[in-house]
Amino acid sequence: MGENGKRPIRLGMVGGGQDAFIGYVHRIASRLDGEYQLVAGALSSRPEVARESAAMFGISAERAYTDYAEMARAEAARPDGIEAVSIVTPNNVHYGPAKAFLESGIHVICDKPLTSTLEDAIALSGVQPKGGAKFLLTHNYTGYPLVRQARQMIADGKLGTLRVVQVEYPQDWLTEEVHNKQADWRTDPSRSGIGGCIGDIGTHAYNLARFMTGLELEMLSADLTTFVPGRLVDDNVHIMMRFKGGAKGMLWASQVAPGNENGPSIRIYGDKGGIEWQQIEPNKMWFCPLGEPRQLLTRGGATPIGADAPAGAQTRIPPGHPEGYLEAFATLYRDFAGVIRGETDGALLPTMADGVEGMKFIVAAVTSSNNDGHWTRLG
Amino acid sequence: MGENGKRPIRLGMVGGGQDAFIGYVHRIASRLDGEYQLVAGALSSRPEVARESAAMFGISAERAYTDYAEMARAEAARPDGIEAVSIVTPNNVHYGPAKAFLESGIHVICDKPLTSTLEDAIALSGVQPKGGAKFLLTHNYTGYPLVRQARQMIADGKLGTLRVVQVEYPQDWLTEEVHNKQADWRTDPSRSGIGGCIGDIGTHAYNLARFMTGLELEMLSADLTTFVPGRLVDDNVHIMMRFKGGAKGMLWASQVAPGNENGPSIRIYGDKGGIEWQQIEPNKMWFCPLGEPRQLLTRGGATPIGADAPAGAQTRIPPGHPEGYLEAFATLYRDFAGVIRGETDGALLPTMADGVEGMKFIVAAVTSSNNDGHWTRLG
Amino acid sequence: MGENGKRPIRLGMVGGGQDAFIGYVHRIASRLDGEYQLVAGALSSRPEVARESAAMFGISAERAYTDYAEMARAEAARPDGIEAVSIVTPNNVHYGPAKAFLESGIHVICDKPLTSTLEDAIALSGVQPKGGAKFLLTHNYTGYPLVRQARQMIADGKLGTLRVVQVEYPQDWLTEEVHNKQADWRTDPSRSGIGGCIGDIGTHAYNLARFMTGLELEMLSADLTTFVPGRLVDDNVHIMMRFKGGAKGMLWASQVAPGNENGPSIRIYGDKGGIEWQQIEPNKMWFCPLGEPRQLLTRGGATPIGADAPAGAQTRIPPGHPEGYLEAFATLYRDFAGVIRGETDGALLPTMADGVEGMKFIVAAVTSSNNDGHWTRLG
Amino acid sequence: MGENGKRPIRLGMVGGGQDAFIGYVHRIASRLDGEYQLVAGALSSRPEVARESAAMFGISAERAYTDYAEMARAEAARPDGIEAVSIVTPNNVHYGPAKAFLESGIHVICDKPLTSTLEDAIALSGVQPKGGAKFLLTHNYTGYPLVRQARQMIADGKLGTLRVVQVEYPQDWLTEEVHNKQADWRTDPSRSGIGGCIGDIGTHAYNLARFMTGLELEMLSADLTTFVPGRLVDDNVHIMMRFKGGAKGMLWASQVAPGNENGPSIRIYGDKGGIEWQQIEPNKMWFCPLGEPRQLLTRGGATPIGADAPAGAQTRIPPGHPEGYLEAFATLYRDFAGVIRGETDGALLPTMADGVEGMKFIVAAVTSSNNDGHWTRLG
Repeated sequence: MGENGKRPIRLGMVGGGQDAFIGYVHRIASRLDGEYQLVAGALSSRPEVARESAAMFGISAERAYTDYAEMARAEAARPDGIEAVSIVTPNNVHYGPAKAFLESGIHVICDKPLTSTLEDAIALSGVQPKGGAKFLLTHNYTGYPLVRQARQMIADGKLGTLRVVQVEYPQDWLTEEVHNKQADWRTDPSRSGIGGCIGDIGTHAYNLARFMTGLELEMLSADLTTFVPGRLVDDNVHIMMRFKGGAKGMLWASQVAPGNENGPSIRIYGDKGGIEWQQIEPNKMWFCPLGEPRQLLTRGGATPIGADAPAGAQTRIPPGHPEGYLEAFATLYRDFAGVIRGETDGALLPTMADGVEGMKFIVAAVTSSNNDGHWTRLG
Repeated sequence: MGENGKRPIRLGMVGGGQDAFIGYVHRIASRLDGEYQLVAGALSSRPEVARESAAMFGISAERAYTDYAEMARAEAARPDGIEAVSIVTPNNVHYGPAKAFLESGIHVICDKPLTSTLEDAIALSGVQPKGGAKFLLTHNYTGYPLVRQARQMIADGKLGTLRVVQVEYPQDWLTEEVHNKQADWRTDPSRSGIGGCIGDIGTHAYNLARFMTGLELEMLSADLTTFVPGRLVDDNVHIMMRFKGGAKGMLWASQVAPGNENGPSIRIYGDKGGIEWQQIEPNKMWFCPLGEPRQLLTRGGATPIGADAPAGAQTRIPPGHPEGYLEAFATLYRDFAGVIRGETDGALLPTMADGVEGMKFIVAAVTSSNNDGHWTRLG
Repeated sequence: MGENGKRPIRLGMVGGGQDAFIGYVHRIASRLDGEYQLVAGALSSRPEVARESAAMFGISAERAYTDYAEMARAEAARPDGIEAVSIVTPNNVHYGPAKAFLESGIHVICDKPLTSTLEDAIALSGVQPKGGAKFLLTHNYTGYPLVRQARQMIADGKLGTLRVVQVEYPQDWLTEEVHNKQADWRTDPSRSGIGGCIGDIGTHAYNLARFMTGLELEMLSADLTTFVPGRLVDDNVHIMMRFKGGAKGMLWASQVAPGNENGPSIRIYGDKGGIEWQQIEPNKMWFCPLGEPRQLLTRGGATPIGADAPAGAQTRIPPGHPEGYLEAFATLYRDFAGVIRGETDGALLPTMADGVEGMKFIVAAVTSSNNDGHWTRLG
Repeated sequence: MGENGKRPIRLGMVGGGQDAFIGYVHRIASRLDGEYQLVAGALSSRPEVARESAAMFGISAERAYTDYAEMARAEAARPDGIEAVSIVTPNNVHYGPAKAFLESGIHVICDKPLTSTLEDAIALSGVQPKGGAKFLLTHNYTGYPLVRQARQMIADGKLGTLRVVQVEYPQDWLTEEVHNKQADWRTDPSRSGIGGCIGDIGTHAYNLARFMTGLELEMLSADLTTFVPGRLVDDNVHIMMRFKGGAKGMLWASQVAPGNENGPSIRIYGDKGGIEWQQIEPNKMWFCPLGEPRQLLTRGGATPIGADAPAGAQTRIPPGHPEGYLEAFATLYRDFAGVIRGETDGALLPTMADGVEGMKFIVAAVTSSNNDGHWTRLG
């Protein structure tokens, strides 16, 4: 149970068996505010792993499935069936489960990117959810309080007309040839889709820029590279962007930048000011009003935009005490619980449309790169 | 349910009704890893608040108490009674509940400082827990992965013989006269005890130094100040420390340092190297081997002390993704679950003895300050 | 007099009258180590300013010229004539003086970019200096000790094979329409050349990348923008780069990024490690060996490349005491004094060839941008 | 020659022969703005070193003395004799030369601390300078633009009533037993005086606090330590301070803190705001107005105290381009040139009285420490 007197939402999970990274993150996010209870799962297609994982996570044996379609049917038929499901499989196994659960009237929380192909993404967006089932795409960086505060500040005109967006996401874990559960599917186009780095973290960077600025991309020019010999997908992404209305941007994502663990960061400049934020210190954000000293805004701290600032509203603990990645992720889950209960509209939550746009972004980037950087529109 | 297939521990809470800060933190910490389930509470001495809060937190009406003694009796008598209780009341209401629950055979998780008087602390340490009930004091900074890694590195001799310890905890929220639920009891000696700043955050700083270095305090010289007119307890703490074996230290704690939200930090130097850590960036730590470049260690990242480093063992998500205050707090809860189940000895967890020492530290500091800084031993 | 018992070199200056920024910097740089003595000048084309400025700088009236050609003739004829001249005029007045002094056998220290047109640059590079007169282009960032150390470390293979170069130079001083001595000529194509931001600071960024990495540019794709209405040159530069051998890069330069004063920075990644440096904290540099903790190298401090490290050799004061922009600039002057005296070859000093390459870079960037980002080779 | 049309002041130097650190710094500082010309010296008491060093620095042989008294006499008698002298000898050789030159009517620039004993300091302060000769003590940190700006802001009440001052100066170069020219005299009480760390850098920290805050010390409680076996003076300083008017402070100075090169820093808090500055990033300063976001002030950048801010007035190059230690030092020289010429009163320059106070501070600290931390007034 959580803090609001509401019965926890019954949750299922597809993928996320033991040793999976992102499934573990989703489970913590679902527990943190006490708004969900995990009661069913198709945690693995291997029966033994599915069974053992379910036991570890407190799922009863009868609700430990090995097949998501069966799970969707069975759970939809139970009076105590799951109300929502988290899909944390590799990209190529997003479409099937998402469709199955939505059509079974079960709300879907799906990891990004939406699918492994644009075709799947478009098809999924055409699915008619039964009974108004809702969809959440976990672009988790949008859950950071200061990211939301920046979005509000920009919408309120604090930066004036936007001109320049510099966004990046460097990592170093694929600097050399690596083989493990995480690396294998991300570098296998049959599971990840046509994008490697562009799909795994480039889309996060793009979504972060999109979410904070509200700018729509007009076209992009990309130069994707595969530095590690034998790798089948890109591991470094260079993109120039032109937004509608005239703003310009650059996006750099890399899995081969030694010294960078997980470093999404963004800098946004308008004709009246700038904002700079980076994930490694997520409780701080620079606000640079033109002609004045830089201000270091803090999560929940003193702010130039008043007590109703989103960061204040979304923070759990007093300013100065750091929150992190898991809290941001949990905020998406918590907000989505409000949507499921019909209490809020979840206006800040990433949607199916964002997911389709993300897939178009991947396709446009790969297409542009294959055409020597030709300026390319989202499909 | 959590991740390990174990039934969650049945948990109660004393204090922590709606709008309480630290009770909320304890509840999140108890949920994050799925190791506890909150099922009973004496959340407030005001019946209505107790009842309403219980309802909000999913506690059934019959287990919503207004009196901790009654709660201890009743829960001990239930076959499904709580196995552990979190005490999150003001300092002067730690002793009573802790004694009652320990003597009822219920494990106790108690916020710091241990009590409001040294006498209570000593008395509490003499209580005979029924059935081997265990005790945890939530000096939560000890749950940060890098704090634990530093402790291990120092124990392993990476800094050589320790010489200098500079620890501090500045805040600014009491720079002016403030009246609210949080401020009121902390500045009221009948509830907080003789220490204001020294008790609320000075003890955190002291515990942090003690935990990381392993050094024992020999004596201290203190200069406590009350800067805000009319305040009944200190709001700024200056202490010089001498440790057994010859190391020296300084401790600064303040509630009147504008620009500082919650800034515990520590710097430790030995004859072979130094370590520097601060809470506002808890996923980073400086390691300064003498004569070599500074190294920036990260939570779970590359480390000079090998794959078995405590930080690696205690971290939940990949390096680079920030963890924070709530995860550190949850780690204490998770580790204590292992102790309750008899699986681990909880060697890293703060104990009753740490709590008594903390109270002796407060008394020694106040005594020294009242004696014009006379070098004073822990009582 | 300086520190080495040598007679100071007699120096003249073209441009740099009162209120000029860069002339003042050159004069400080020439004085700092005592290696030069300013004795003549054509400080302004306006006789009164030239005369008054000369008096302020201690130049005798008879050597206060208003015409550089006359100055070159007269000084070359004097037995005590200048041995070197600093050219600190707007870009379009570099070619003429540089040619005149070189052909008069007087060494030339010229501010960047080399000229205002590529044609002038190529013509200048074809001039036959009389008597072996030498040429220095003041790409001053190459004078920072850690920039030189990075160059050495990269040359020594500390980063392995280079893959990714992210270089940038953001400013904010032209965010709005500005009119003053500094802004006017920089935004006037007849004086600055075809490039605005690309010429003024983009070339610095490019040179910094070139100097540190040793990589040769194969081609670039540029998107230059003029954000401030009515401005005749670009004020924001986005460039993607492909280097010979396969490395890729991005270059961002901007004069419209609020909150950025003068922020050149560079990040370089190879298959064995990374290096990151930024001018605002020039005495620090990150060295990120793959799979190890980041190391914070300091100017003159402990280093992984031994006591003969360039940074150690070039630093004037003990580590920890900050050096800055003027010291880096002075190092170019000091090193060039050694070249003039025939004592050193000045292998680290920016040359005429670097200047020509810089002009080709400007032209290629403008050309590419005018061709919708077509990948363009240096002319 | 400098920038103002004035004839350079004829300067002599006592001490500072080849390989001396601080003499080199003084010479650069004297040259940087072109306000001085070094023409005489008693650079060493060893004739050969004195002669060779003089030759290196461009001093004619006839003005290369081996005895400061002879130098004072001879120079005072020359029509072209020195007008000012820099004294850069070990502490115990400050008194003699300073007295001799002041009594010869020659202005004195003296390194800190003023002398090696309080008696000498008091005696020196009683000397009657001939012809109004002036005295400058080179507490060089007071020359940093932002240090001066902070002083002004505090004087203007931007922080309200001051309460807490945390100042420190950690180094690591004496962590182990060290023998070289610099270390030897600093750890030899016959040359350094009774203080080791307290005299060499503790006085810098004290002076920095004194200069910025304007607060007068009422008394102190000190705990000095010698960590390195066999060392004859302290190498770590812990001090608690009480200022007139009620503010409190802590001072930490150390030569045995691995990872710290030269790290003076200060944090000052009043009832309306705070200021934080550290030398390793001297071009930045935090201004923390109570209840508002932190502001990062930059040297010469946007400021809340207007265009007449001292930092703006004292800066040489545009904001963003870093200045450092040598520029701050040079500013003292430049300002003193104005005093010598009778153009300014040098209100910001450290005086003889500051030097005497510094010696009293050393004596009080050593006395307090020898009396187990007894609160001790300045003598």
